[in-house]
Amino acid sequence: MKRRLNAVLSDIEAELRESTERGEVAGYIPPLAGIDPAKFGIAVVLPDDTTLLAGDADEKFSVQSISKVFALTLALGNRGDSIWQRVGREPSGDPFNSSVLLELEKGIPRNPFINAGAIVVADILLGAYQPRETIGEFLRFMRFVTADDDIYIDHHVAQAENDSGFNNAALANLLKANGNLDGAPAHVLGVYHHYCALAMSCRQLARAGLFLTSSGRNPITDTRIVAAQRVRRINALMMTCGHYDGSGDFAFRVGIPAKSGVGGGILAIVPGIASIAVWSPGLNRHGNSLLGTQALEMLCQQMNWSVF
Amino acid sequence: MKRRLNAVLSDIEAELRESTERGEVAGYIPPLAGIDPAKFGIAVVLPDDTTLLAGDADEKFSVQSISKVFALTLALGNRGDSIWQRVGREPSGDPFNSSVLLELEKGIPRNPFINAGAIVVADILLGAYQPRETIGEFLRFMRFVTADDDIYIDHHVAQAENDSGFNNAALANLLKANGNLDGAPAHVLGVYHHYCALAMSCRQLARAGLFLTSSGRNPITDTRIVAAQRVRRINALMMTCGHYDGSGDFAFRVGIPAKSGVGGGILAIVPGIASIAVWSPGLNRHGNSLLGTQALEMLCQQMNWSVF
Amino acid sequence: MKRRLNAVLSDIEAELRESTERGEVAGYIPPLAGIDPAKFGIAVVLPDDTTLLAGDADEKFSVQSISKVFALTLALGNRGDSIWQRVGREPSGDPFNSSVLLELEKGIPRNPFINAGAIVVADILLGAYQPRETIGEFLRFMRFVTADDDIYIDHHVAQAENDSGFNNAALANLLKANGNLDGAPAHVLGVYHHYCALAMSCRQLARAGLFLTSSGRNPITDTRIVAAQRVRRINALMMTCGHYDGSGDFAFRVGIPAKSGVGGGILAIVPGIASIAVWSPGLNRHGNSLLGTQALEMLCQQMNWSVF
Amino acid sequence: MKRRLNAVLSDIEAELRESTERGEVAGYIPPLAGIDPAKFGIAVVLPDDTTLLAGDADEKFSVQSISKVFALTLALGNRGDSIWQRVGREPSGDPFNSSVLLELEKGIPRNPFINAGAIVVADILLGAYQPRETIGEFLRFMRFVTADDDIYIDHHVAQAENDSGFNNAALANLLKANGNLDGAPAHVLGVYHHYCALAMSCRQLARAGLFLTSSGRNPITDTRIVAAQRVRRINALMMTCGHYDGSGDFAFRVGIPAKSGVGGGILAIVPGIASIAVWSPGLNRHGNSLLGTQALEMLCQQMNWSVF
Repeated sequence: MKRRLNAVLSDIEAELRESTERGEVAGYIPPLAGIDPAKFGIAVVLPDDTTLLAGDADEKFSVQSISKVFALTLALGNRGDSIWQRVGREPSGDPFNSSVLLELEKGIPRNPFINAGAIVVADILLGAYQPRETIGEFLRFMRFVTADDDIYIDHHVAQAENDSGFNNAALANLLKANGNLDGAPAHVLGVYHHYCALAMSCRQLARAGLFLTSSGRNPITDTRIVAAQRVRRINALMMTCGHYDGSGDFAFRVGIPAKSGVGGGILAIVPGIASIAVWSPGLNRHGNSLLGTQALEMLCQQMNWSVF
Repeated sequence: MKRRLNAVLSDIEAELRESTERGEVAGYIPPLAGIDPAKFGIAVVLPDDTTLLAGDADEKFSVQSISKVFALTLALGNRGDSIWQRVGREPSGDPFNSSVLLELEKGIPRNPFINAGAIVVADILLGAYQPRETIGEFLRFMRFVTADDDIYIDHHVAQAENDSGFNNAALANLLKANGNLDGAPAHVLGVYHHYCALAMSCRQLARAGLFLTSSGRNPITDTRIVAAQRVRRINALMMTCGHYDGSGDFAFRVGIPAKSGVGGGILAIVPGIASIAVWSPGLNRHGNSLLGTQALEMLCQQMNWSVF
Repeated sequence: MKRRLNAVLSDIEAELRESTERGEVAGYIPPLAGIDPAKFGIAVVLPDDTTLLAGDADEKFSVQSISKVFALTLALGNRGDSIWQRVGREPSGDPFNSSVLLELEKGIPRNPFINAGAIVVADILLGAYQPRETIGEFLRFMRFVTADDDIYIDHHVAQAENDSGFNNAALANLLKANGNLDGAPAHVLGVYHHYCALAMSCRQLARAGLFLTSSGRNPITDTRIVAAQRVRRINALMMTCGHYDGSGDFAFRVGIPAKSGVGGGILAIVPGIASIAVWSPGLNRHGNSLLGTQALEMLCQQMNWSVF
Repeated sequence: MKRRLNAVLSDIEAELRESTERGEVAGYIPPLAGIDPAKFGIAVVLPDDTTLLAGDADEKFSVQSISKVFALTLALGNRGDSIWQRVGREPSGDPFNSSVLLELEKGIPRNPFINAGAIVVADILLGAYQPRETIGEFLRFMRFVTADDDIYIDHHVAQAENDSGFNNAALANLLKANGNLDGAPAHVLGVYHHYCALAMSCRQLARAGLFLTSSGRNPITDTRIVAAQRVRRINALMMTCGHYDGSGDFAFRVGIPAKSGVGGGILAIVPGIASIAVWSPGLNRHGNSLLGTQALEMLCQQMNWSVF
């Protein structure tokens, strides 16, 4: 399989390199707006520690919303299923930044992968701690998950998101007004924006997703990250809610659980088989990487990977 | 008329004093939560400077959203009809604090009397000034309108609203995210919350409304506040949008333009005839004074006052 | 006043005749789609029976939603205030044909002038009668109100609306599903579409509105149509809800209660002074007559007519 | 596996038989309202034709919305991917019968498994045929898929749904008004309600789902029903949209693609492994079988079946 997989990755990278339809780089976070749209990287890590790369797979990018998967994992570990009293598990049918349902449903976000839900998860992790401590804990968790200390938070990006993240500020204040935020909005937003500003390469991100492929264990370090049952549920959430109001289409076209970020990255899981990270900065109209989605569709089709 | 009016006011005050169904005092602004729900005052001022009072008509209360009428008047004077590019003139059919339509309609609030619209008006008045200057200008305008210097802003209330006004903060940030706020959300909210924290008695408020009864002139001081055409339009807005999603019901039952505030006050205008202010802190489910509405309904029925 | 009014009407008619921006004729009701957009008529009737006309004021047109005013008047007469248990009195902030709020609010339409609310009124009038009887009763009422037997229902238009009125059918079925329709949807729609297919001239329509100007009496025939209190409330509803999601703008610009129809007619009331009917088939984006609204704005400005 | 599976099914059936919390039987379709809530059946069919049963697995019930899976399969076979121009592939986040998004999104239903979407699929299948022919074609398809001629449509149920299905009539008319229905609403509803009135037992339904387990072939009859790629996509749609606004929760708790019906049935697919049908008439608040969902959760947990 590895030889074939390597050939497939090379083919995909070669084909997409030439693509002239690359989507739009997210413009609303200034430090991300300048990213070269020609970038493209992909990494596949197998449970036996095989790592296959193509393109800019070792270049770090801002993982943005992909970090919601890890924040949720950490929150489930720290607080258990009580978190589901504060955030739902349903696709919202709305864009990532919508506050419409939030108002109609009295402050309980539909799921932890839309911004409102991820802000609640950040608040849960913040608890009685200081933002700095919580951010530090999250970074340590990411380094533990990947067994790689060369992961950092880009404070420049975090600051820019704090400065221009008016929509997130609206969501945090709406949550607070509805009694579903313990911390001060500014503190919670600080935590949230730092999570999102995590800088990782495709290689690192694919390694980070390995526990989702392997029933909750990192098979390389042989450490348990989370219970097997929880992994299945996190994967289920990625399947139904991982691409905002493009989740159904992604499930339909690609057929595996995945989570996108506006930095252009996507983490995708083939349960039992592979953890995949892909990066191309241009986004489609739902805010998901245009070429990243195409790459995953091609890869899964050619490798016959699907959960269905 | 004056004798009869005096008798009617006394009757209304006597009857409502006894009312046991007084609604709920707004609990979400701490300094207002402690107001005695038994308070009741009413003042009617006629264009010839006759002033008729009943109950606690000389006790100051927080005018809250009634100040939106005066902020709009000031903004129309300063900026003219260009303000209608940033705020609409339609009833919203939604509660005063809703952000649903704001999102669907890309940041243009439906009218200047819902919170989102009033925040835009505050931003227009702020312009390139400092919040402190803008607040000062507004206070001077209120003193000019009433020809009374004993009007002040309760900074304690303003501070409390700044501290707990998460819903307003959500609206301001949503406006900013949609490009309909020039100032920083915190600055605009500071201005807005200070406007709302204006402390006035029924007597003062009824005098302040006199120019809306008299084609834009204060007949007592014989000064022009605003053009006659604008007065009609402000009255029209009060009629269609003055009571949030209870505006239609108020027009149906009472039949004159009016604007309510969560402090329990209502300013009502009988064009050409009278300016009325009423205050009772308990609110109905739309956030409008329960007994204040009843008092106006009784008064207008007995005096045969209606624009229709 | 009459001489001046006559001159104003002539001026308005002359000016608007030349207008090249006339809006779009409603295309979805086939027999209306072919109406000549150059048509323009206006009629003003005063309580002393003076009638002033300009343009095509004696040509019959389809009154469409203007009939909702008379259906409501009849329903209030027949059933009294109990009808308010089945329909609200608030502007909806939505287009005339929306079903969104209807679903969210469990089948209680916001007001009797949006289609859903008018369908409920038709159902109330239908009661246990046959559609044919109810339609007959309505026609008799219109002839009584105007003291004119030359008013008829255009069955060709009614049939066309029945055949193509899928949106109204959706509303009727949604009302039925929510338990707010007693009759069969097809029966109620038959009644409703016949009401709307009423054919009247501006002259007739202005006469029909006279009781709304004169506290519920037809001053010409000296017959009471409805109680004075009810007239005020009907006028209030026209003011807040008479132009769908353009009601606030109409109140702002024109300043008197009025009700429009997609046939291009508008009935407008200057309480105590005049009943006005105007007709120009082209509509603005809210579905209200474009030139008709302009004509009323010019007329009221020049005659200094406003309730505010 | 078969022995263990048999034991698990017996245990589940025994445990759920005793359950006192059984949900509410759907009351709005009269012939279904009288179904005994104590009924419970489950059937598992494996690709090698092994069939394991427990409880009332041979009793026929109304499959209702489960038929949407087969209607979609047939439509994809007949018309191919062009159907996606008329219906989306996204979870809606709304109840099964909502018309809210339909209006906001101009008549394109979010997915083929909400009622509005399934009505569009019925319209696609109807095409230029007569309702009777289309219903006949669907029944033949169901008999072909199961290789069982003992499947019928309960015309009594279909008629009852036609008579009382006001919400579906609202949706069909709204689709027609928005230009996304070719047939007459009454015809399309006739087809749709007959599909839903399909009567099948758990045993039959599980057999019918076998092609979804086996890459589009019925392994027993060795006939191809649909291309392998399409099966994956149908399974993906069941995963993201199969339980209306309870889809995310079902994916989270059970972890396999499934489609429910208000008759209390659920068809669930373990790709490559098993086709499962379960039936218990009581529904949870999302309109999905309460005990059916529990049974699938228990079964999947004990058999370690999950796509994730």
